[in-house]
Amino acid sequence: MKVEILKENFKNGLNIVEKIVGKNLSLPILDNVLITTEDNFLSLSSTDLETAIKLWILTKIIRKGKAVVPAKFLSSFISLLPNEKIILEEKNQKLYVECNSFKNQIQGANPEEFPLIPEFLDLEFLEVDNKKLCQGLSQIVDIASPSSSRPEISGVYFIFSNNLIKMVATDSFRLAEKIITLGAPIKKNVSFILPQKPAREIINILEEKDGKIKIYFLPNQTMFEFPMKEAPRPQVQIVSRLIEGEYPNYEEIIPKKFKTHVIIKRDEFLNQIKAASLFSGKINEIKIKINVQQKEIQISAQDPDIGESHSSILAKIEGEPIEASFNHKFLIDGLQNIKSSEIIFDLSKEEGPCVLKPVGDASYIYVVMPIKST
Amino acid sequence: MKVEILKENFKNGLNIVEKIVGKNLSLPILDNVLITTEDNFLSLSSTDLETAIKLWILTKIIRKGKAVVPAKFLSSFISLLPNEKIILEEKNQKLYVECNSFKNQIQGANPEEFPLIPEFLDLEFLEVDNKKLCQGLSQIVDIASPSSSRPEISGVYFIFSNNLIKMVATDSFRLAEKIITLGAPIKKNVSFILPQKPAREIINILEEKDGKIKIYFLPNQTMFEFPMKEAPRPQVQIVSRLIEGEYPNYEEIIPKKFKTHVIIKRDEFLNQIKAASLFSGKINEIKIKINVQQKEIQISAQDPDIGESHSSILAKIEGEPIEASFNHKFLIDGLQNIKSSEIIFDLSKEEGPCVLKPVGDASYIYVVMPIKST
Repeated sequence: MKVEILKENFKNGLNIVEKIVGKNLSLPILDNVLITTEDNFLSLSSTDLETAIKLWILTKIIRKGKAVVPAKFLSSFISLLPNEKIILEEKNQKLYVECNSFKNQIQGANPEEFPLIPEFLDLEFLEVDNKKLCQGLSQIVDIASPSSSRPEISGVYFIFSNNLIKMVATDSFRLAEKIITLGAPIKKNVSFILPQKPAREIINILEEKDGKIKIYFLPNQTMFEFPMKEAPRPQVQIVSRLIEGEYPNYEEIIPKKFKTHVIIKRDEFLNQIKAASLFSGKINEIKIKINVQQKEIQISAQDPDIGESHSSILAKIEGEPIEASFNHKFLIDGLQNIKSSEIIFDLSKEEGPCVLKPVGDASYIYVVMPIKST
Repeated sequence: MKVEILKENFKNGLNIVEKIVGKNLSLPILDNVLITTEDNFLSLSSTDLETAIKLWILTKIIRKGKAVVPAKFLSSFISLLPNEKIILEEKNQKLYVECNSFKNQIQGANPEEFPLIPEFLDLEFLEVDNKKLCQGLSQIVDIASPSSSRPEISGVYFIFSNNLIKMVATDSFRLAEKIITLGAPIKKNVSFILPQKPAREIINILEEKDGKIKIYFLPNQTMFEFPMKEAPRPQVQIVSRLIEGEYPNYEEIIPKKFKTHVIIKRDEFLNQIKAASLFSGKINEIKIKINVQQKEIQISAQDPDIGESHSSILAKIEGEPIEASFNHKFLIDGLQNIKSSEIIFDLSKEEGPCVLKPVGDASYIYVVMPIKST
């Protein structure tokens, strides 16, 4: 392999594929990036066996071939080179890098040992606005519970149905749902559970990009693909295994009726909860008390070793006065995922699920369970 | 104690005094801040028994008194309050905080248990431009070696002599000296060794402030004081114990004669050393090779598991060709502490000390030992 590539393009590509590369003691080949020539493109691939990232860079190909080199090392090294053309040449599992006065060789590995990354050709896919998908995903992805003993709630549940994409995550104490509306109905209704890590990588890699993203459907895998402008190769593909199992029937958890309906300023509510959280004690006693009165919400917390906190906010309140206790972290997470200046806070009964959602946007809902009073 | 204080002023003060507060299991009183009324001022004090920080805030005093409360807790809490007036009141070792709708009480401790912080009155001091002192100190402070078995090199050596302040740090592999010239001669020549931690806190707390800083002299202690504009109290005092022992006669380590004199672009040299450092191996074999030719410097490193790096830079070179090996970290630290675009690199012999210094600024010198060839 011998190619001529711009430093900036190579660096940007390496920054993306190195994201899923860790330190793999049992399978060190996974610490590497696979570099391959494909027509006028250089492709870079990495995998952790659950997720694979592959991307293409328009490159002057001098001699076809492949190279496998340590991904994080190569990325650190290339970022230090001057902003010029780089010549990359592979000989005997060594990568030779030349740029200005630099002449380097990097010890690589055998490309035959690098795991095969599946290729999807002529398969069914769906297109959706990329920023909408990434922003929506970022509002729910952290709620999933990878450490749970229930693998089916360790990822993000995607439901493609009629003209909607629903994305759901829960850790059994709280649940978040984001709905994206498509311009046209989906041909076939499907659903899958995507692990949390690739869901986060999709956001990390793609959230700044304007355009449409393609979602491919397969029995045990999925692929998110972002196209390159008018090029025969995509810009980047993120392939992931799916989680097996049946996602809980989450819709029956979302309460439909409420006892008390509150409209409140988000930032002030969030700040008062954060302040109260400092007084809410350690480990087991992490609760803060929310007391909804006729015209205001009172927020309080106390711990004999720390002290007491009391504060209140005026709010638009309909329904009966109610008092409930919450894990402050769950309220803070929910409020931070809502971007509107005013939020709706619906409470059903002392120990029933409550709902947080933005005012004027029905596409997002966050359900949180109060702490049972003892 | 009862006072009325602006949130922003109180928050800024707490941000400073909390810097030296850690988690002190054996002496938990040190986790606290001491709050005291003094005339029209509220003073905040913290100490780790080596260093103490004290500052004054102009405040409306309603009732005189003292309070002792957890410093980091109070700082986190106050920063969440709205930007308004705060009423602080101490009763029975509890601090009551009121601000807008917030009514909080914080469990405190007994002010009598808080360590006494020494006060310096009518003592000898010297005034120096604060930014010059902080910037100079930041160029050398990281070179000191607190983990060394030699306590005398674990801090920064200050020499006050004639119209100069010399600040020196070494870890026995390299040495940095910064000289500040004063407008008038110093009355009495003195010197002391300041521990690294308070030296770093002086930079952290004061580096943005325009004005003169006062340095006080005492047998086993020193104090750095920054004044408040036209106020009877200083803005902030940093008091520290000094390190006992005699600082090595460092001036005899600085070489006076050289075999080879190089003038080279700093950023390019630094970048090439960083790139080579990636190829310089692990733990024991951290060396990179510098080869000074007639018109260029060649930089190289190699490791059988990683690969090889070779690069070069054109430079103005006088004297004989020379080759020497260095710990890359030591060269990188030295170059990062020099801010000029061109630097002087003087080499004496293969194993003798070398010097890095800025072009056109005789106030800074960085001496580094090459690695002996084996």
